[in-house]
Amino acid sequence: MKSSKYRPPSPKKKREPIAFDIYPLLSYNGYMKNKNTGNCLIAQSGGPTSAINASLAGLIAEFKENCDGEIFGALNGIQGVLSRNIINFKDLLDINEENLEKLKISPAMYLGSCRYKLEPFQTAINQLLPDYERIDDYTCIFNILKEYNIKYFFYIGGNDSMDTVKKLGEYAKSIDSDISFMGVPKTIDNDLPVTDHTPGYGSAARYIAASMLEMAYDTSIYNTKSVLIVEIMGRNAGWLTAASALARTDFSDAPHLIYLPEKNFSDTQFLSDLREKLTSRSHVIIAVSEGIHYQDGTYVSAAGSIKDQFGHVMLNGAGRYLAKLVSSKIGCKVRSVELNVLQRCSAHLSSLTDINESFELGKTSARAALSGESAKMSCLRRIKNEDGQYAVEYFLTEAENVANKEKKLPLEWINQAGNDITQEFLDYARPLILGQPKIEYQNGLPVYLSIRHLGV
Amino acid sequence: MKSSKYRPPSPKKKREPIAFDIYPLLSYNGYMKNKNTGNCLIAQSGGPTSAINASLAGLIAEFKENCDGEIFGALNGIQGVLSRNIINFKDLLDINEENLEKLKISPAMYLGSCRYKLEPFQTAINQLLPDYERIDDYTCIFNILKEYNIKYFFYIGGNDSMDTVKKLGEYAKSIDSDISFMGVPKTIDNDLPVTDHTPGYGSAARYIAASMLEMAYDTSIYNTKSVLIVEIMGRNAGWLTAASALARTDFSDAPHLIYLPEKNFSDTQFLSDLREKLTSRSHVIIAVSEGIHYQDGTYVSAAGSIKDQFGHVMLNGAGRYLAKLVSSKIGCKVRSVELNVLQRCSAHLSSLTDINESFELGKTSARAALSGESAKMSCLRRIKNEDGQYAVEYFLTEAENVANKEKKLPLEWINQAGNDITQEFLDYARPLILGQPKIEYQNGLPVYLSIRHLGV
Repeated sequence: MKSSKYRPPSPKKKREPIAFDIYPLLSYNGYMKNKNTGNCLIAQSGGPTSAINASLAGLIAEFKENCDGEIFGALNGIQGVLSRNIINFKDLLDINEENLEKLKISPAMYLGSCRYKLEPFQTAINQLLPDYERIDDYTCIFNILKEYNIKYFFYIGGNDSMDTVKKLGEYAKSIDSDISFMGVPKTIDNDLPVTDHTPGYGSAARYIAASMLEMAYDTSIYNTKSVLIVEIMGRNAGWLTAASALARTDFSDAPHLIYLPEKNFSDTQFLSDLREKLTSRSHVIIAVSEGIHYQDGTYVSAAGSIKDQFGHVMLNGAGRYLAKLVSSKIGCKVRSVELNVLQRCSAHLSSLTDINESFELGKTSARAALSGESAKMSCLRRIKNEDGQYAVEYFLTEAENVANKEKKLPLEWINQAGNDITQEFLDYARPLILGQPKIEYQNGLPVYLSIRHLGV
Repeated sequence: MKSSKYRPPSPKKKREPIAFDIYPLLSYNGYMKNKNTGNCLIAQSGGPTSAINASLAGLIAEFKENCDGEIFGALNGIQGVLSRNIINFKDLLDINEENLEKLKISPAMYLGSCRYKLEPFQTAINQLLPDYERIDDYTCIFNILKEYNIKYFFYIGGNDSMDTVKKLGEYAKSIDSDISFMGVPKTIDNDLPVTDHTPGYGSAARYIAASMLEMAYDTSIYNTKSVLIVEIMGRNAGWLTAASALARTDFSDAPHLIYLPEKNFSDTQFLSDLREKLTSRSHVIIAVSEGIHYQDGTYVSAAGSIKDQFGHVMLNGAGRYLAKLVSSKIGCKVRSVELNVLQRCSAHLSSLTDINESFELGKTSARAALSGESAKMSCLRRIKNEDGQYAVEYFLTEAENVANKEKKLPLEWINQAGNDITQEFLDYARPLILGQPKIEYQNGLPVYLSIRHLGV
């Protein structure tokens, strides 16, 4: 599939609808000339981001424009398909421009999520059905898709979700089904391969950088020595923690030390780094990934950790452990802060660039499916526009290239001492956090779409 | 001093300069006719808020308008006076409208802070001077004020700072000094007596409510039972934690349980409340004050607590303790989040009402000092405007009425079961969080004034 150039709207300008002719996809397969038929089913999966609903809005906008079929949503991901928890989207929400704009900036997942991994289809059994009804997940899913006359299935998610897209695509091929299975990427972690960056990352990065800046102000007020340790999400990849460096302005150097999971951590080196910083400044602010670990692989705070369904270790407490270490070995005032879930749901501080790109990725996947593509995911490629500025183009990759894979921060973007990032990272990440979406406030609160249908 | 009516600008409208004639203060003592002379010195103290610099801006704007003297700032509060860390404000910043607008929305404390408590003046010794130079704090302070020709001293802070204002005012009287000492209130805790509410509270409350709403969205996505415990600041008063209830909209009921330090906490009752909520809903979100305690007075998490200079116990971990309790006794998915320092420095989400009122409180204190008042603090009184809507008027109270005193949430605003607040609280707090200040963004970050002069 050929890609096309697209210049993202300047963050200072109002959001503009993207010109239609930038997608070569549109011009082949003839689907613009003859409206397509068949219904689509959309589901979301994995952890939430502030931008994932923008991809949902993009899918819906594109599908509505170019296909006469119905738009269905499965609640709580592939589990919602397996348990027939499927709604006609128009019963949830009038599909009009105003609602799609609200959907674009609403945090978390409008259709809910799940963490359900399909077995390889040779061995699959649907665990959700009662014993006497059990069939394998694939038979169950395809029965239900047939029942709803689904021709296009979209899954918005991360590398686990792309595993689902890949498996369903393979299964469809094996049974000669013409149903298209398309992925749309999302993850705050920015750890998907192939795509330049992941939708959701820019918004989380912006929240992290702005919070870091505000905490630098907060920390500045006393003239006694103090250390602030900020723990940021990221099990294996340091993208989010590195984004804290975007907080640096003419007015603040924070964070002063940054530790990422890409490098082995050492308590001794950390204390030595910190002592040196404390000789030249009163306040030292440190960003650490939740996933920092020692050379032998043990996490800095493995205490209380448990494994989730995918075998990921769920961590907590690296920051708290280090705060205790500083308190006992250096003895100055120290505080640890976990940004926690706010870094993935603070939609009022989303990046407009991220929201717009997420929307376009949704549209790209819809166009691809309508053009007959399957088992693929839409991606971003960074290019330069005519002015030499940041721009992106959209393309497809096989879901297989993304499924269960992880992209870490390049080691050359971490400084020699292993306690900071380089200018290359800043140049890479800065364009991703630009632009403030227009947020409406009512009663002092940001206005998002209702999620009552999720039973909350 | 007579008070005057003031209708706060509607949050939907642009900020408007407040009409000058609303202050009867202006019309007495004749200081508008003849420009006053003498310099002023301003300092800030205690913990930061997002609105304290708005009060600083108000003081400066009013003083510049009505007095020919110089404006000095003491860095790091009264400690900055004692250690002669005093700057002429115009050397820091051009005093113009643009910079004052930026100052109004900049978080933390532009002049830095301290936690330094003056001894009663009979026994005071300046601990900051070398042994051979030691004189008492009062002699030292008055020597320095004389040296800078200070006629007006302003201290922006909480109940500890009003203790300083009171003592300096009393000392001035005892030595027949005509220097005026005026307080301007601030604290996110909303625990000062006399004033209807405290500047800084509305902004913190807005951040807490918006974050609670966004976390409710985040929590909604999985269809498995889960509990989220959000720990909010507040040692002895539940005002901030109660503000989480402002998050409730047509689309979200969170938080579903609220526990405040005004009521004794019981693990058994908590588990019983939670079990009941879990019978009717999948996701239960709980707001708890850091200062919740059992009937015998011990804090729910006293572990690791230390005392600060004022004898306040610094707590952490009520939320974490309760998360472990839920995990072991109920066994469902549970997470605890501490909003931590972000609730007092997230200036990008300040309440415009709060910012405007803080600015006016600064102006009120400046006018009062120029009118010959001393040892007083400016206050807010809630009134109704002609449309029956929320409005405030400004008045003065003796610093003595505020010094070292605390105002707790009225018990009648807590429900019978002790696990929620009443509509009366919501009616009280809602107007305080209204209005979004205009924030400029550069490179994706909010633009605040530099704090480089604090040595950060």
